[in-house]
Amino acid sequence: MSMEQRAILVIGIGAGNPDHLTLQAVKAIRRADVFFVVGKGPHKASLTDLRHQMIEEHAQGPYHVVEVEDPSRDRRPLDRSDYTAAVQDWRERRGEIFERAMREEMTAGETGAFLVWGDPSLYDSTLGILADIEDRGALSVTVEVIPGITSVASLTARHRIPLNQVGRPVHITPARRLADVGQNDDGDIVVMLDAHESFTQVEGDDVWIYWGAYLGTPDELLVAGPLGEVADRIRELRTEARARHGWIMDTYLLRNVES
Amino acid sequence: MSMEQRAILVIGIGAGNPDHLTLQAVKAIRRADVFFVVGKGPHKASLTDLRHQMIEEHAQGPYHVVEVEDPSRDRRPLDRSDYTAAVQDWRERRGEIFERAMREEMTAGETGAFLVWGDPSLYDSTLGILADIEDRGALSVTVEVIPGITSVASLTARHRIPLNQVGRPVHITPARRLADVGQNDDGDIVVMLDAHESFTQVEGDDVWIYWGAYLGTPDELLVAGPLGEVADRIRELRTEARARHGWIMDTYLLRNVES
Ligand SMILES: C[S@@+](CC[C@H](N)C(=O)[O-])C[C@H]1O[C@@H](n2cnc3c(N)ncnc32)[C@H](O)[C@@H]1O
Ligand SMILES: C[S@@+](CC[C@H](N)C(=O)[O-])C[C@H]1O[C@@H](n2cnc3c(N)ncnc32)[C@H](O)[C@@H]1O
Repeated sequence: MSMEQRAILVIGIGAGNPDHLTLQAVKAIRRADVFFVVGKGPHKASLTDLRHQMIEEHAQGPYHVVEVEDPSRDRRPLDRSDYTAAVQDWRERRGEIFERAMREEMTAGETGAFLVWGDPSLYDSTLGILADIEDRGALSVTVEVIPGITSVASLTARHRIPLNQVGRPVHITPARRLADVGQNDDGDIVVMLDAHESFTQVEGDDVWIYWGAYLGTPDELLVAGPLGEVADRIRELRTEARARHGWIMDTYLLRNVES
Repeated sequence: MSMEQRAILVIGIGAGNPDHLTLQAVKAIRRADVFFVVGKGPHKASLTDLRHQMIEEHAQGPYHVVEVEDPSRDRRPLDRSDYTAAVQDWRERRGEIFERAMREEMTAGETGAFLVWGDPSLYDSTLGILADIEDRGALSVTVEVIPGITSVASLTARHRIPLNQVGRPVHITPARRLADVGQNDDGDIVVMLDAHESFTQVEGDDVWIYWGAYLGTPDELLVAGPLGEVADRIRELRTEARARHGWIMDTYLLRNVES
C-alpha cells in the first residue's frame, strides 16, 4: 500500500502589511490550487481577512479556499512542563484537523497552501504540525517553505534601528521566558507573545524599549524611549487598544544601552 | 544656516534570491532617483551584481546609480575592545564616504536608496552610519526602512524547520561570541559572520546543525544532521566552495535536541 502524497506550500505573508509579501510568495500563491485558512480566536477576523485579501489579489486560475477550524487551547497560566504538554495536546488536535482537510479537500495532483503570519519559522506551529503528520505516516507531505518578513523585522524597520549592537548577540524570547533570558544582559532582547506586560518586570536605568503593536497595519502603534520613562505610556496604550480591538499583538526590543 | 536635507530609503533586498524582494521593496525601488551601491571586498562582484539586476528590473523613470567605494577594514583577529574600535573606525570612514556621496550625487528634492543585503536591521552598518551622519549634524537625513528577508529566515525555510523550539528562546550571534552565548544551552543558536568554522568548537552529542551557504543563490549548499556526524562534511564543502568562489557566506542553526 503506497501512502497518499500531498504537496504543500507554507507561505510566510509578513506580519500585517500586505506589501510585505515577497515576489516568491506571490508566485507561490499563483501556483496553489487549494488554500487552507486557519481561524484563530478573537482576532480571527482581522488576521484571516488579510489572508483572504491576498488570495483574492494574487491567486490565479481555478482555486478554492478551505476554512480550517482551530481547536481551542488551554490558556490558563501554566508552569513550564504543563505549558509544553498543553501545546503538545493542542498541536495533536490541530494535526488531525489539518490532515483531514488535506485528505478531503485536495487531491495528490493539486498544490495546497497555508498562508502563515510573519515568517513560518518564528513561533508558529504549522511546520511542526506538518512534520508530525508525516511522522505518523498517515500522509506523505512534501513541504516547500517560503520565508516571510517577521514582526521583528517590521518592528526594527518602523523604529529605524538595528536589531543588534555592533558585534553582539540578539535574543528572541517568548515573554514567559524573559526572566531567564534577561539574566544574561549582553545583547538585545526581543520579546514576543506577551500577554502580561512583562516589560514592567524589567529593571535597570540603562534599558531602552522599542515597542510596536499592530505593526504594518493602519492601527500601528509605536513607542520608544528609556523603559522607566515610557512604560506607563505603553501600558495605557495597550489597555486602550485592547479594549478597542478586543485583542492586541505587540512585540518589543529591550536594549541595554550602557552595558 | 539651515541644514541640507536628504530623503533616504534603506531597502532590505533579501539574502540572495531575487524573488525575496517584497512588494514594498519593489515600490521603494520605483520611487528612488539615486541608488548608492557599496562595493565590498572579494565577493563584491556577485553581491553587487544582484543589486544592479534588481535596479535594472524594477527602477522606473530617470534614475542613476552611484558606486560607493568601501574603506578597507582591519580583519586581523582582535580581542573584543579592539574589535569594537576597529569597527568604529571603519564606520566613521564609511560615514564620510556616504555623506559625500549623498551631498554630491543627489539633491534635496530627490530620493536616494541603499539596497541592503538581507534585512537592514541584522548585522548591517548602514542604519548606524546614517544615524552617525545625522548626529554629527552635517546633513539632515530622513530615513525610511523597508524590511527584508534575512539569511536566517532563508536558512530555516530551506531546511523546512522552525527557528525555535516550542516556548523557548532563540539566540542569534556573531561567531566570535558563540562561546559565551553557548554557555546558556536553553534555546537554539544561530551563528552568523563565521570566519573560523566555530561549530567545530561546540561539544555535545545532542546538538544538531542546520547549515547553509550561498542561500537563495544557484550555488546554495545545505547540510543538516547531528553535529558530530556532519561537521567534517561541512568543513570539506566550505573549503572546496571557498576555493572555487574566492569567498563564502554561511549561516547555521545549532539545536540542542535533548536539553
Ligand atoms: C504566534 S507568534 C507569530 C510570529 C510570526 N510568525 C512572525 O514571524 O512574526 C505571534 C506574536 O508575534 C508578534 N507579532 C506578530 N504580528 C505582529 C504585529 N503585526 N505587530 C506586533 N507584533 C506582532 C507578537 O509578539 C505576537 O504575540
Ligand atoms: C554582514 S551580515 C548581513 C546579514 C544580513 N543583513 C541578513 O539579514 O541576513 C553577513 C552574514 O550574513 C549571513 N548571510 C548573508 N547572506 C547569506 C547567504 N545568502 N547564505 C548564507 N549566509 C548568509 C552570513 O552569516 C554572513 O556572514
